[in-house]
Formats: sequence, C-alpha cells, structure tokens
Amino acid sequence: MASIFTKIVNGEIPCYKIVETEDYLAFLDVNPNSKGHTLCIPKKEVDKIFDLDETTYNGLMSFSRTVAMAIEKAIPCERVGVSVIGLEVSHVHVHLIPLHSMDDARFIQKVKLSSEEFQEIASAIQSHL
Amino acid sequence: MASIFTKIVNGEIPCYKIVETEDYLAFLDVNPNSKGHTLCIPKKEVDKIFDLDETTYNGLMSFSRTVAMAIEKAIPCERVGVSVIGLEVSHVHVHLIPLHSMDDARFIQKVKLSSEEFQEIASAIQSHL
Repeated sequence: MASIFTKIVNGEIPCYKIVETEDYLAFLDVNPNSKGHTLCIPKKEVDKIFDLDETTYNGLMSFSRTVAMAIEKAIPCERVGVSVIGLEVSHVHVHLIPLHSMDDARFIQKVKLSSEEFQEIASAIQSHL
Repeated sequence: MASIFTKIVNGEIPCYKIVETEDYLAFLDVNPNSKGHTLCIPKKEVDKIFDLDETTYNGLMSFSRTVAMAIEKAIPCERVGVSVIGLEVSHVHVHLIPLHSMDDARFIQKVKLSSEEFQEIASAIQSHL
C-alpha cells in the first residue's frame, strides 16, 4: 500500500507545500514540534534513509540544506535542527525543526496552527528560496 | 576557546574513536541514548550545520552515511536515526542513534556503559567499515 507521503506526492492527500523538484518534496508537518517544522522526502518510496542509494541520499541531504536555509531566514529560532527517525511512517522523511529549546527536538510538545497560519508559514519559507 | 570536540580532534581529550578522515571524525557519544550512539563531526569548528560551506556539509553527510551503515550492521536495532541539534556544544555534530523505540530519539533516557563496553562497541562498528 502506498505510504501517506506517496499519496501526498501523488496529490491524493493535500499538503502545505514548500518546494518540489523532480525527485524531492518539502512540505509542512501538520503536527509540528514548532512553527515552521518541515518534512523533506524523496518521491521514491523507501523505508529507511540508509537504504536509499547514494545518489538519492546525497540529493535529499542537499535539498534539505536548501530548504533549511530558507527556514532559518523565515522563522525566528535559535537554529534549525534535523531529525530522521521513521518509526511511524515507513517512507524516508527528514524533519527540519526550528529550535528554541531542546524540547522542540523531542517530539513531545506540539503546536496547534490554523490552516491560515500553515499557509502563511509556507509562503514565508518559499519567499526565501 | 576551542570546543570540547576540537579538543577531541586535537587529542587533548580522549575518545572512543570509530573512524577518522582528513576532514571528519566519528566517535562514540559518552552519554549515549542507546548502545552504539555515535557522533560525526567536521574537524573544522563551526557552530551550526547550515553555516557549513556546501562541500563540508555534503562531505559530513556522506561520511555519516558510511558510519551509519556500519552501525546498522554492528548493533542490533530497528534502524539508525539521525539528529542534529547543537544547543549544548557549539561545534557541528551529527548524532547517529540506534533506535529501538521513539524514546531513544528523545535524549531523555541514557544508557550507562563501562569503558570495556565502549571499546567493544567501537571495535564492532569498525569491523564493518
């Protein structure tokens, strides 16, 4: 069965898209640790990051860097953190998380945002790409 | 003042080394989230990962992939997770963490290991490089 992220790639499930290339997609996490929490994925559905072929892995990390630099400009924060866990959705995803304190990196406290706020955040990040 | 990691690079502070190249160093985290928790750093002392120049960043992520694949072979786990936070030590470091559950990615529960155990883990990972 297609992962929820493949359904997003295919447009079957909507997302707050940041940017898309032929091979990668960045969109806002709808259950964010903090404002601006973004997911970067390869369009190719692979479960574990270190099972990606070298080219796809390198491309994903480079794509994530570009997106993270835009987040750092758009969202006030101490820095943008990176997490790759993947125990819940079995489709590689790089979390880019604007950090204010260590708790923002722990996936224990979540922020509630309205659809309008998600749209504004996505636009703000896009404006720095 | 030199960061604690620069002191490790310079041999002023000992570490359980996994592997070293001209530009990067991997060693065991001495306050591990789980057995096999490893840090990959650029020898160049830079605070934030997205302030690294593109070549150093790409090299660090490629080096981390090589180390992570050895960890996955050496340490029984669900998968190896990645975290870059950096709010405590201001010298870029990529955490590679063998994950058994989500808690291993949260930096809240720590594992105590003896010096002999650290040495054994480092050797086990090295044997897969």
